[in-house]
Amino acid sequence: MKLFNKVAIIGVGLIGGSIGLAIKKRRIAREVIGVFRRTSTLKKALKKKAVDRATLSIKKGVEGADLIILASPVFSIPGLAADAVKYAKEGAIITDVGSTKGWIVGCVEEMMGAHKMVAFVGSHPMAGSEHAGVEFAEGDLLKSAPCIVTKTARTDGRALDKIKKFWKNLGADVKVMSPASHDKSVAFISHLPHIVAFSLAGAVPEKEMAYAAEGFKDTTRVASSDPNLWADIFLTNKNEIMPAAKVFEKHYKNIARALSRSDYAGIVRILKRAKSKRDKLRDP
Amino acid sequence: MKLFNKVAIIGVGLIGGSIGLAIKKRRIAREVIGVFRRTSTLKKALKKKAVDRATLSIKKGVEGADLIILASPVFSIPGLAADAVKYAKEGAIITDVGSTKGWIVGCVEEMMGAHKMVAFVGSHPMAGSEHAGVEFAEGDLLKSAPCIVTKTARTDGRALDKIKKFWKNLGADVKVMSPASHDKSVAFISHLPHIVAFSLAGAVPEKEMAYAAEGFKDTTRVASSDPNLWADIFLTNKNEIMPAAKVFEKHYKNIARALSRSDYAGIVRILKRAKSKRDKLRDP
Repeated sequence: MKLFNKVAIIGVGLIGGSIGLAIKKRRIAREVIGVFRRTSTLKKALKKKAVDRATLSIKKGVEGADLIILASPVFSIPGLAADAVKYAKEGAIITDVGSTKGWIVGCVEEMMGAHKMVAFVGSHPMAGSEHAGVEFAEGDLLKSAPCIVTKTARTDGRALDKIKKFWKNLGADVKVMSPASHDKSVAFISHLPHIVAFSLAGAVPEKEMAYAAEGFKDTTRVASSDPNLWADIFLTNKNEIMPAAKVFEKHYKNIARALSRSDYAGIVRILKRAKSKRDKLRDP
Repeated sequence: MKLFNKVAIIGVGLIGGSIGLAIKKRRIAREVIGVFRRTSTLKKALKKKAVDRATLSIKKGVEGADLIILASPVFSIPGLAADAVKYAKEGAIITDVGSTKGWIVGCVEEMMGAHKMVAFVGSHPMAGSEHAGVEFAEGDLLKSAPCIVTKTARTDGRALDKIKKFWKNLGADVKVMSPASHDKSVAFISHLPHIVAFSLAGAVPEKEMAYAAEGFKDTTRVASSDPNLWADIFLTNKNEIMPAAKVFEKHYKNIARALSRSDYAGIVRILKRAKSKRDKLRDP
């Protein structure tokens, strides 16, 4: 038996499109329908075979779906959830893929109130790249990627289990946590690195970039990410990003101070501590 | 006719070993001899076939060599150059692969004084990775890599031409500039990104690293680089790194300030500027 009969993906870009491809590849649902804002994207997604069917109507997309996935920029998610709830069938599950969870889950749960017919579970599959658009979608994007699923006092247990199973079936490495814990983690390991990469790319004089080698390219790669998408993320997780930024500044200033004093042993000590942490993530 | 008869590489690690492999692959010299400090590295390099012959004696390595390449950490280069000059034959050329050029070229030219028998030309092949050691050496490491060759009032024209030709034959994209211009460029596109990556890796709480995805890995990859190697580089290019760091801080603070004010349009504007610069480096 398939996990779902009909899955609707609202917003079929890099992530939504990759989810569609993975569902089809792994035969997790009978049918995947994509909901689009623009005909141009709709055509691209059909050509890529990221969805089985496509529509510009939320109503048509959502009707009869067992699972509704909101895969659009953070600020648009609560509004789309409200639209989806209107047309969703009894027993449907709604999830999202937004990069901040406290704000989204809070807004959606508040909006849904005591709605018993439809369940909402927040998700954050931590995959993607600096690219945007369904043309970059890949069926294996979620394979081995961390995927955080959120649990709150209002989360429906049956829906939570089904969402966990869904992401696991797509190949992701699923962890359950509160929206607050999620937001603190991603502030450090995703949002702060983006701020730093954007700052670095912004700081380098254009004429020096002719000599950029792999180190610079790696360090600034995510600065090619979508500015609007990331402005949403930064603003909705501001309360966790600001303290994480303070920790970064402390470490940065320690190196700058040691350098200004020409403190060789001090610099080596700081770099060694940073290296020993980063080395734990190295590919074997 | 081969470009060189005998090439001596002093310090056969990631870069020195890759140069040895490339010389042999492209048949640029008749013989490559490696000079080592440790027998363990010597054995690894011979096993990897990074050099034809190996010795622990600088005298033996340098004697009769047409080209002597100093491929050891920055602070050790002037001392090794002084040793090499003692045993070098008339007409030999010495170059290095150090990541800062002002300090190295200044020290070596000062040491050599009016020595007419041996020429020195500074080089910086901008290849490598966060890995260290001859076991990671690759014959194609320098292919398409930027390679800066320095020219000063004291640089011998014939030696400069030969060194340019040498790196070109190894597949590198050669640019000639003054040590000062080089140091300013690398402060921005290499040294500053390393400081930022080390700071970021240092700042992230260890328990959050379980959720690190590609973005974090890319942004901090170079924080796995060798701490001693990089302490040398930071200290010898301090005068260019400190002002570059100020520019980075300005850009970083602009984002932090816009975020603290929840200035959506301001954040988008800053991110867009950074993205448009970084996009120019994107693979097609």
